[in-house]
Amino acid sequence: MKQLEQAIFDHGTVLPGNILKVNSFLNHQLDPELMQAIGIEFATRFKSEAITKVVTIEASGIAPAVMTGLALKVPVVFARKSKSLTVHDHVYQANVVSYTKQTETPIYIEQQFLAPTDHVLIIDDFLANGEAVKGLLQIIAAAHATVSGIGIVIEKSFQPGAKWLHQQHYRLQSLARIKSLDNQTVTFLDDEPSR
Amino acid sequence: MKQLEQAIFDHGTVLPGNILKVNSFLNHQLDPELMQAIGIEFATRFKSEAITKVVTIEASGIAPAVMTGLALKVPVVFARKSKSLTVHDHVYQANVVSYTKQTETPIYIEQQFLAPTDHVLIIDDFLANGEAVKGLLQIIAAAHATVSGIGIVIEKSFQPGAKWLHQQHYRLQSLARIKSLDNQTVTFLDDEPSR
Repeated sequence: MKQLEQAIFDHGTVLPGNILKVNSFLNHQLDPELMQAIGIEFATRFKSEAITKVVTIEASGIAPAVMTGLALKVPVVFARKSKSLTVHDHVYQANVVSYTKQTETPIYIEQQFLAPTDHVLIIDDFLANGEAVKGLLQIIAAAHATVSGIGIVIEKSFQPGAKWLHQQHYRLQSLARIKSLDNQTVTFLDDEPSR
Repeated sequence: MKQLEQAIFDHGTVLPGNILKVNSFLNHQLDPELMQAIGIEFATRFKSEAITKVVTIEASGIAPAVMTGLALKVPVVFARKSKSLTVHDHVYQANVVSYTKQTETPIYIEQQFLAPTDHVLIIDDFLANGEAVKGLLQIIAAAHATVSGIGIVIEKSFQPGAKWLHQQHYRLQSLARIKSLDNQTVTFLDDEPSR
């Protein structure tokens, strides 16, 4: 997705440890028009899948996910990271390792928001080692729902998450695929779809 | 806002301790079309303020805020709650007490995303004691930016936050104003604007 690649080129910065910082439009400040374009792009790519629900994780997944849900006209559920008094006890839970935050975080979704009849599109901001997506897959499996696709805003293709998801035969669509962050430079995969 | 009041009537549940649970459309599962309608409503109510930036807090503020930013065509910044390795050291910081989670949480915004020339619209999902908004006001004051308005999805008018903001002469617009949650029943304030 050229508009997204351009935003990464213009505003992304590469930090030591293969970290791509895109805080000016995705992870801290948000560009709402870009988020809307991302939502429409995901809806187009997955329109044949009869999606009934979009699932993501707080916090950076919410903006692209809600725009995707709007374009697909389906509800969005964001997995929560901390247990609030307002959350019911009947939850599906998984643990997610964050390499950037160096923590292991429990995530959960209330059982009432995932049904065996659901065809779920997982949306997330980044795919690196795939730990967040694996946590969501575990939760969706516990609900006996169907994973119909995985949509990622920025895929770090040189890390193992994307390869693992392809091996498991999930339908993965990433809007920007990064081949390398070497020498503090962003290099995209050549075979990125042109639109 | 009648559409929102209807959603609260249809899907909200009142828990002990004056907690209104709206997890099915605002705090865990999201109704994207309702979020869009909320964003358009905030944009309409604050269109005369020449807003340059929408500011909220992760996680439940993000969906209404990004829809408001889309309608106003301005960037959105969500204050973050946990310090990630990808976040720069130059931040404005405040502490927020959460009564529902019984914690005190540091929140912060990177300095580069708030300028003295900014006219900020604060958006949040709930207003009760006003602690979250006070944290954001502290951060915006530190940046020497102007607070041009505060937009709240659900105001618990019987708790002190709204009264305090009016006393401080902030322009507060709440889309649903709850007079009472007594007897596990939601009662709205009579003078809610009709549209």
